[in-house]
Amino acid sequence: MPNPTAAMLVIGDEILSGRTRDANMHYLAGQLTARGIDLKEVRGGSDDAPAIVAAVQAVSAGFDHVFTSGGIGPTHDDITADCIAQAFDDSIDVRDDARALLQAHYERSGLELNAARLRMARIPSRACLIDNPVSTAPGFSLENVHVMAGVPSVFQAMVASILPSLTGGAPLLSRSLRLMRGEGDIAGPLGRFAESYPALSVGSYPFQKDGVYGSNVVVRGSDVALLDAAMDELAALFDA
Amino acid sequence: MPNPTAAMLVIGDEILSGRTRDANMHYLAGQLTARGIDLKEVRGGSDDAPAIVAAVQAVSAGFDHVFTSGGIGPTHDDITADCIAQAFDDSIDVRDDARALLQAHYERSGLELNAARLRMARIPSRACLIDNPVSTAPGFSLENVHVMAGVPSVFQAMVASILPSLTGGAPLLSRSLRLMRGEGDIAGPLGRFAESYPALSVGSYPFQKDGVYGSNVVVRGSDVALLDAAMDELAALFDA
Repeated sequence: MPNPTAAMLVIGDEILSGRTRDANMHYLAGQLTARGIDLKEVRGGSDDAPAIVAAVQAVSAGFDHVFTSGGIGPTHDDITADCIAQAFDDSIDVRDDARALLQAHYERSGLELNAARLRMARIPSRACLIDNPVSTAPGFSLENVHVMAGVPSVFQAMVASILPSLTGGAPLLSRSLRLMRGEGDIAGPLGRFAESYPALSVGSYPFQKDGVYGSNVVVRGSDVALLDAAMDELAALFDA
Repeated sequence: MPNPTAAMLVIGDEILSGRTRDANMHYLAGQLTARGIDLKEVRGGSDDAPAIVAAVQAVSAGFDHVFTSGGIGPTHDDITADCIAQAFDDSIDVRDDARALLQAHYERSGLELNAARLRMARIPSRACLIDNPVSTAPGFSLENVHVMAGVPSVFQAMVASILPSLTGGAPLLSRSLRLMRGEGDIAGPLGRFAESYPALSVGSYPFQKDGVYGSNVVVRGSDVALLDAAMDELAALFDA
């Protein structure tokens, strides 16, 4: 059976303006790969409701799982929850279960559960909450979309909350061989090698170091024995 | 007149598998922002031809410019040029102008222009070449899609080659204010502040430092005087 597939939506202006360099995509990619869920597409968009709704609908229909980061805080630019509700034609309001979590949290910390903070309890009616052990305000899953915070420590905690509940596949293993030869030099034999292992994915990533061209050949697959045999052949092929 | 809009496609498996953390998106975002071209969407996909063709067609229709990175080298997994040709129903083959560039380059460096390297001269018939001062093999522009290499040094050189030829808008300026107060605390007044400056975009980015919650408020716009006035008001609003 093929592995489940996934897409990620990074929501918010900060990556598009060059202000912030994304960390969550990189983290999620590693976690999903280890669990045997194939991340097939990532998209980042601005805080623009119609664009978010359209993107959610497109990737939700195209992949088994969708993970979003960002836009579920208390400020005016946090519009993700409303967009998700709209994408699935669900209603959204402050929900008692989410409000209770926030109430207990703010009572403990002596802060007021004001109107802005209460916005974080706005959850679509059909969603399941995702636990947030870092800062309490929950994420949620609606249909196949898992909605998480953008702050990396909270995002990571939410991924840890949700991932064990998702059925994974065979973890994708990866081996690499670093060659101090340019891609143009290895491309012919490498292409034939890749063709002879249809069950593996063979990628070549060029680099430059001190003016010399090299290639990292990365071979991915879920069958350890096949992967090991392929790497032996690859090393022999390039005398590495 | 509103600024031109742009989307970026990051092509290749390496980011999706968590192996590589994207650098080109972050670089391009900064360059476009400075030139007054609004990056509205980024997408990353795997080395899968139908998905690349569909993504190119979608973003090409939706934005003024599209920038791609990756997949134009000599190896079997470099399929971007063929996908772009297909997306625009253009033919593709080794082109004399690109071949001449490569021939001169490999003669100078004493390397053979073998079949694999010659693949880098495969350019759609209607495309214009993008200069590559780092490693010669050119990128190209076809209609509103600018196709560039994935190696960061080459990507950056190609961006420098192409950007001056694109009409920009008013550069988007950005000011930020760091507040040691949580978002829940500032969200009410901040939302009213954002509403009173419809020509500016106001974002709030929470952070945690030593267990304390803070917020970076980022205000963006192209009118310096308005931006300065808004920042003065913002500082007064939060006694910062």
